[in-house]
Amino acid sequence: MNLIVQKFGGTSVKSVARIKNVAGIIARAAAAGPVVAVASAMGDTTDYLLKLAQQASASPDRRELDALLATGEQISIALLSMALRERGVQAVSMSGPQLGITTENVHTAARIVEIKTDAIRRHLECGRVVVAAGFQGTTAEGDITTLGRGGSDTTAVALAAALGARTCDIYTDVSGVYTADPNIVPTAKLLPEISYDEMLEMARVGAQVLHPRAVVLARQYGLPLRVRNTFDPDHKGTVLKGVGQMEIYRPVSGVTLDRDQARLAILQVPDRPGIAGEVFGALANSHISVDMIIQAFHEGGAVNDITFTVKRNQLQAARALLEQIASTVGAGGILADQDVAKVSIVGAGLMDQPEVAATMFRELGRARINIKMISTSDIRISCVVSDGDSERAVQLVHDVFHL
Amino acid sequence: MNLIVQKFGGTSVKSVARIKNVAGIIARAAAAGPVVAVASAMGDTTDYLLKLAQQASASPDRRELDALLATGEQISIALLSMALRERGVQAVSMSGPQLGITTENVHTAARIVEIKTDAIRRHLECGRVVVAAGFQGTTAEGDITTLGRGGSDTTAVALAAALGARTCDIYTDVSGVYTADPNIVPTAKLLPEISYDEMLEMARVGAQVLHPRAVVLARQYGLPLRVRNTFDPDHKGTVLKGVGQMEIYRPVSGVTLDRDQARLAILQVPDRPGIAGEVFGALANSHISVDMIIQAFHEGGAVNDITFTVKRNQLQAARALLEQIASTVGAGGILADQDVAKVSIVGAGLMDQPEVAATMFRELGRARINIKMISTSDIRISCVVSDGDSERAVQLVHDVFHL
Repeated sequence: MNLIVQKFGGTSVKSVARIKNVAGIIARAAAAGPVVAVASAMGDTTDYLLKLAQQASASPDRRELDALLATGEQISIALLSMALRERGVQAVSMSGPQLGITTENVHTAARIVEIKTDAIRRHLECGRVVVAAGFQGTTAEGDITTLGRGGSDTTAVALAAALGARTCDIYTDVSGVYTADPNIVPTAKLLPEISYDEMLEMARVGAQVLHPRAVVLARQYGLPLRVRNTFDPDHKGTVLKGVGQMEIYRPVSGVTLDRDQARLAILQVPDRPGIAGEVFGALANSHISVDMIIQAFHEGGAVNDITFTVKRNQLQAARALLEQIASTVGAGGILADQDVAKVSIVGAGLMDQPEVAATMFRELGRARINIKMISTSDIRISCVVSDGDSERAVQLVHDVFHL
Repeated sequence: MNLIVQKFGGTSVKSVARIKNVAGIIARAAAAGPVVAVASAMGDTTDYLLKLAQQASASPDRRELDALLATGEQISIALLSMALRERGVQAVSMSGPQLGITTENVHTAARIVEIKTDAIRRHLECGRVVVAAGFQGTTAEGDITTLGRGGSDTTAVALAAALGARTCDIYTDVSGVYTADPNIVPTAKLLPEISYDEMLEMARVGAQVLHPRAVVLARQYGLPLRVRNTFDPDHKGTVLKGVGQMEIYRPVSGVTLDRDQARLAILQVPDRPGIAGEVFGALANSHISVDMIIQAFHEGGAVNDITFTVKRNQLQAARALLEQIASTVGAGGILADQDVAKVSIVGAGLMDQPEVAATMFRELGRARINIKMISTSDIRISCVVSDGDSERAVQLVHDVFHL
């Protein structure tokens, strides 16, 4: 099908004025062919609804939380459809259940099981733009579910895959994916193309343009994605493609910074099996997500240090847990450090070029920026540094690799 | 079934604090037997959503308006279910589509066609309180509809009828139905019982406790209704029953006042068939609801005056239409009067006691309150008077009939 799917995030539909702007972008696409538009909730609606839920109950029931949060997108899609009709574009809003998006029976973070596209196709065949609610679906029993973080991106990609769309455009408030955050590195350049895998590492380490989950799904279906700017819709943006089409000769594609980091360590842990499992099991039970994990051996090998990072707002909870665990397992103590940030470089060619990592570490050292933790993957190298050094580190690395 | 249905209006669930209060009332009922609770949207939510719609489009698409407005109740029922669970009461929210409420395919004012109660019964059998969204349903094709004014009352009565409930309690912000508005007539008394028909006339003429549509439905199914106070839940309230149980010897049950009235007249209309149809057809096409209509003959019978009342906020629109019609049909002119209010007495015994009407007119005359229009039904007599005289008129009539 010549269909395109367009997705508009919360900032793109923050106000009715912005919704009208989005209607203009959709109307232009609809003049050229069939369109499914996916929208998130308006601006801060989700946060507002969460606040109400917390007032109603100390630990709101998750089925009800989903029913509550799903109203956010229902509001934005109804308003967007109205704005489209005001422009003379035939449009219909469709909620998760109406779209036929069936999810697993897990509230607040459901995965999509199946999309029955009959109802959508019927509207498209009548020449209507389908304005789809992002972030939501329904269980086989008819309960409303939400897809959790990155949900609207995932809805857009899943609909594009199910409908056989030729592309999925993710509209956001930047013009695409940059070699670094332009607010930190003024010379950062826009990448016209990036591979799914590079994008995954970029997104995971803090370039918050597109959720990794949606990228994984797009990669799975080989669906081309474009990241585009709602406020500059003529800009071509960044195209995400499979590895076959990517520029494999570029060793470093970009630098990213994640300041929402705090570092914790449990020190001099007796070296016996099961302790790491105990530590991270306890954190997981308390819904504390852990990012980087490093286990270092002390001299002699009888005790270990286990160091990891969490989001800053989870530091206190994680620290309390860790203190408890430290005393039960007989560790030497704990360490908590809020003053950290993660600087990463991403590139599909990294694994083949060990000199890239060496250059990064050397240049940071020369600039007297202390590296507190290092973690690497095939296409990413991350260094945890002092938060105060982090912006300087990003600028430095960006210059060193001539981005 | 020993089931009861409880309905809570917008003021009863205006804030999360009030929702928690309502949860207390439901919890008490749930301890005694199965409960279906129906809730309206929180306070001013509907007005807020309407304002957004008007920003999005000068004439919002009605399908989308319904999708938008339906979110109001989804929010309140999710929060109410959370508050119930917080109290340890198993509860599930159900939206119109989830409740199985099928309506006709008419947006913003749909009538209920059928309720498939399977899903509700399943939850009730598991010992759960069903927290149902008022005001909404779905077409056979899955589009969301709303029931229009009085919709939540209608949902409650329809669910009670479909489920064979033993009673339906309508919780509002007063303790029941009074002989007059206590704000105007301090000596007004609460009626422990009232017939459906008396209530219908009371509701239509301005006692805004319970929507006539719901009363008609309750009468049809012989379902007892109770009007009760959310903020004084121990009060017995007013019971609405069929004519068999009512106190037929009371000539006047109550006095009501409707100040949301404006009077219009088209004067010296040529006396030929079809003109009234033309006038009220044009008003209906512009969605202007007309209340009282009086057509008076002039001397000689060659021309008529047609006088009617509309809601105040529709006066300007109605006036513009009427001026147009007046010139096309060759009428003598029009009259528009915003300074009017409607005072009515209601009683099942009125039709058999012509002296009641005479007394009302005489006493208003003695008090120098000019009667601008009169309209009557079997159980109601309404007089349109100056708005400035209206409260004095209500007090006077209340005293005259020893209410």
